[in-house]
Amino acid sequence: MALQSFVEVKPDSHFPIQNLPYGVFKLGPGLPARPGVAIGEYVLDLSEISKAGLFDGPILKNSDCFLQPNLNKFLAMGRPAWKEARATLQKLLSATEATLRDNENIRQKSLVPMGKVEMLLPMEIGDYTDFFSSMHHAKNCGTIFRGPQNPIPANWFHLPIAYHGRASSVLISGTDIVRPRGQGSPSGNSPPSFGPSQKLDFELEMAAVIGPGNELGKPIDVNEAADHIFGVVLMNDWSARDIQAWEYVPLGPFLGKSFGTTISPWIVTFDALQPFACDAPKQDPPPLPYLAEKISKNYDISLEVQIKPAGREDSCVVTRSNFKNLYWTLTQQLAHHTINGCNLRPGDLLGTGTISGPEPYSLGCLLELTWNGQKPLQLNGLTRKFLEDGDEVIFTGCCKGNSYNVGFGTCSGKIVPSPH
Amino acid sequence: MALQSFVEVKPDSHFPIQNLPYGVFKLGPGLPARPGVAIGEYVLDLSEISKAGLFDGPILKNSDCFLQPNLNKFLAMGRPAWKEARATLQKLLSATEATLRDNENIRQKSLVPMGKVEMLLPMEIGDYTDFFSSMHHAKNCGTIFRGPQNPIPANWFHLPIAYHGRASSVLISGTDIVRPRGQGSPSGNSPPSFGPSQKLDFELEMAAVIGPGNELGKPIDVNEAADHIFGVVLMNDWSARDIQAWEYVPLGPFLGKSFGTTISPWIVTFDALQPFACDAPKQDPPPLPYLAEKISKNYDISLEVQIKPAGREDSCVVTRSNFKNLYWTLTQQLAHHTINGCNLRPGDLLGTGTISGPEPYSLGCLLELTWNGQKPLQLNGLTRKFLEDGDEVIFTGCCKGNSYNVGFGTCSGKIVPSPH
Ligand SMILES: [Ca+2]
Ligand SMILES: [Ca+2]
Ligand SMILES: [Mg+2]
Ligand SMILES: [Mg+2]
Ligand code: NI
Repeated sequence: MALQSFVEVKPDSHFPIQNLPYGVFKLGPGLPARPGVAIGEYVLDLSEISKAGLFDGPILKNSDCFLQPNLNKFLAMGRPAWKEARATLQKLLSATEATLRDNENIRQKSLVPMGKVEMLLPMEIGDYTDFFSSMHHAKNCGTIFRGPQNPIPANWFHLPIAYHGRASSVLISGTDIVRPRGQGSPSGNSPPSFGPSQKLDFELEMAAVIGPGNELGKPIDVNEAADHIFGVVLMNDWSARDIQAWEYVPLGPFLGKSFGTTISPWIVTFDALQPFACDAPKQDPPPLPYLAEKISKNYDISLEVQIKPAGREDSCVVTRSNFKNLYWTLTQQLAHHTINGCNLRPGDLLGTGTISGPEPYSLGCLLELTWNGQKPLQLNGLTRKFLEDGDEVIFTGCCKGNSYNVGFGTCSGKIVPSPH
Repeated sequence: MALQSFVEVKPDSHFPIQNLPYGVFKLGPGLPARPGVAIGEYVLDLSEISKAGLFDGPILKNSDCFLQPNLNKFLAMGRPAWKEARATLQKLLSATEATLRDNENIRQKSLVPMGKVEMLLPMEIGDYTDFFSSMHHAKNCGTIFRGPQNPIPANWFHLPIAYHGRASSVLISGTDIVRPRGQGSPSGNSPPSFGPSQKLDFELEMAAVIGPGNELGKPIDVNEAADHIFGVVLMNDWSARDIQAWEYVPLGPFLGKSFGTTISPWIVTFDALQPFACDAPKQDPPPLPYLAEKISKNYDISLEVQIKPAGREDSCVVTRSNFKNLYWTLTQQLAHHTINGCNLRPGDLLGTGTISGPEPYSLGCLLELTWNGQKPLQLNGLTRKFLEDGDEVIFTGCCKGNSYNVGFGTCSGKIVPSPH
């Protein structure tokens, strides 16, 4: 039988004792930010566990990493510390262990109902990078933006293409997204259009959170890259397609993306994901040696996008996809990112790119789902080409095991009107 | 007669009392980082001036902004604090003021010879953005990368094009640059090339350092943008042209740039630059209203690039350009950056893009100077298509007035071989 916690965990919960994802929360306005892990419908306050002396392993015993307002210090400590914390917490939370279960004082202080906390960005993000690792997404976008001849650029099968995104506007799930204003392509001899984006979109992505970084000038070997990945979050790379289409040649996306990027509050650790590893797709042409992995893994993570249209109570599922649709692995992305000597730092965020699959229902953004607005979506009697003010977009992600799930919770945001 | 300091300042110095650029220094390994201003051949230690109670204006009197290891807190305070600091420091350093001049104790503690300090990055950089604001550079690069038909993209005259660069690898002048490795374009049916870059280049740029930022969703008006700019530095956006050419379609430059970006240690304040303001170029077509400035200013800053080839004692001037060659102004860049609601933060770095002028001697990178290696440069009997290991690149910048200069010092870096 699978490990059980003394904390009640419903069978369909995303947060059983096998998961224990990390986040940062506060109990109210003006109160301090504290690291925690999710267990059932509770948050375990790691600052209280630390203050009670319950992290008693050799690495964490004298560390103040859980007394920080973010996870960066813990991220920098690397896998030995992460494994020790996981072992300690699984033991403390297990049904058969008395230490926390039977200590009402510490239990009361450390286990907080999720409804009572406000989740915050779990780490300071030095740099945020966004990859482009789904072949289906690359092909669809190429066809829409540049036409059906050679929609996938020649370099795409040789390297995981990426660009630097905006770190300042990475937001925690639940933050409203202000509709961006900007320029769109001119028609004929008119000047460019200007105003609130008319093609506001989501992008279904996940992102790796970096643990220990690397020194400038010292690339990370692809076979050691996993040791630099702490865990994974859901990510919505909100995109204004009209702004993007006009600005992106030749230096790439800028204002079409930089107005907001939402991540889920709980970082599911790489360790918790391992039972859900699966083979990565065969890569043809074979990657260059620096991208050739001894073991190449994807993860079987079911992903779903719902839209709750403005003024409605019910949301509609618009996409069902899976992390395993990605062509380039997280470890290949990381190795490529550093091959030129670029330094990563703890807390850096590496987005996968939009995770589209081959099926029409598995497309990861409205640009693809509506074919740039040409085929509007039906949502319970409403239609949508792109997002309207008041629409809320909700991502969920979950690894479904036989006796438990390892889930990501949700990543959501609502569109609010442009200022004028 | 111009204001004089009691500290000796040679006539050709970059750092007279009219300049007073800000930096951060330490006195040796393990010693604390402290803010300072440059005066002649000395650094004035602002932590000592602060501890001595000599910042006696209403804003700075009780502030600990100069007791920080970087300038971010001072940057966030905005122009009223900057003006008060400048007035206080010009008074304290003037030849006719006894307070510091005649107090040997404080003078000894606070005035440190430049030769005794190590300069550090002056601020924590949350995000680094690079623009593309010289028309000559855009035209030359477009011609080299995409051919002579329409070398300047259609959007270029309507918006200041930019992309996000890598903040983690922004380096202080004097740091060695490790030659990056990476993929280059395949020839024929071969796989892509891989190895140390064969087309390593510099890019002559300057960059604005942001003071107070803006809230997410609240754009900065172009006519108020100057209040968000603290000052300007020299910047070398090192570029690997072979890596860049293969990777940059469709998401822009990534590994071709992210291995290192060097800035000069002294931030020349916007206030010190004002005597050197000049008209910005006439813009045709006229910019959209959000980019139309009541007063549109450039700055007359002479720029020079020298290469000191590996193993040689002498350096050769390879470029003479000027900041006023830019088409888009710093304030237009900033207004464009935020028009979609993107939030800037104190310490953000906004590069101008390579500052090339119309003359053959004013081209800001080797890509243009050697026309992608087709016309090698002559350097005192040596030739260079691109940079070789051991080559040092040195930028200088200076505003030349009638009775004094306002200079930027130098921004330099030496190429060291790739790891293997
Ligand atoms: Ca994306
Ligand atoms: Ca550049
Ligand atoms: Mg985004
Ligand atoms: Mg650079
Ligand atoms: Ni060796």
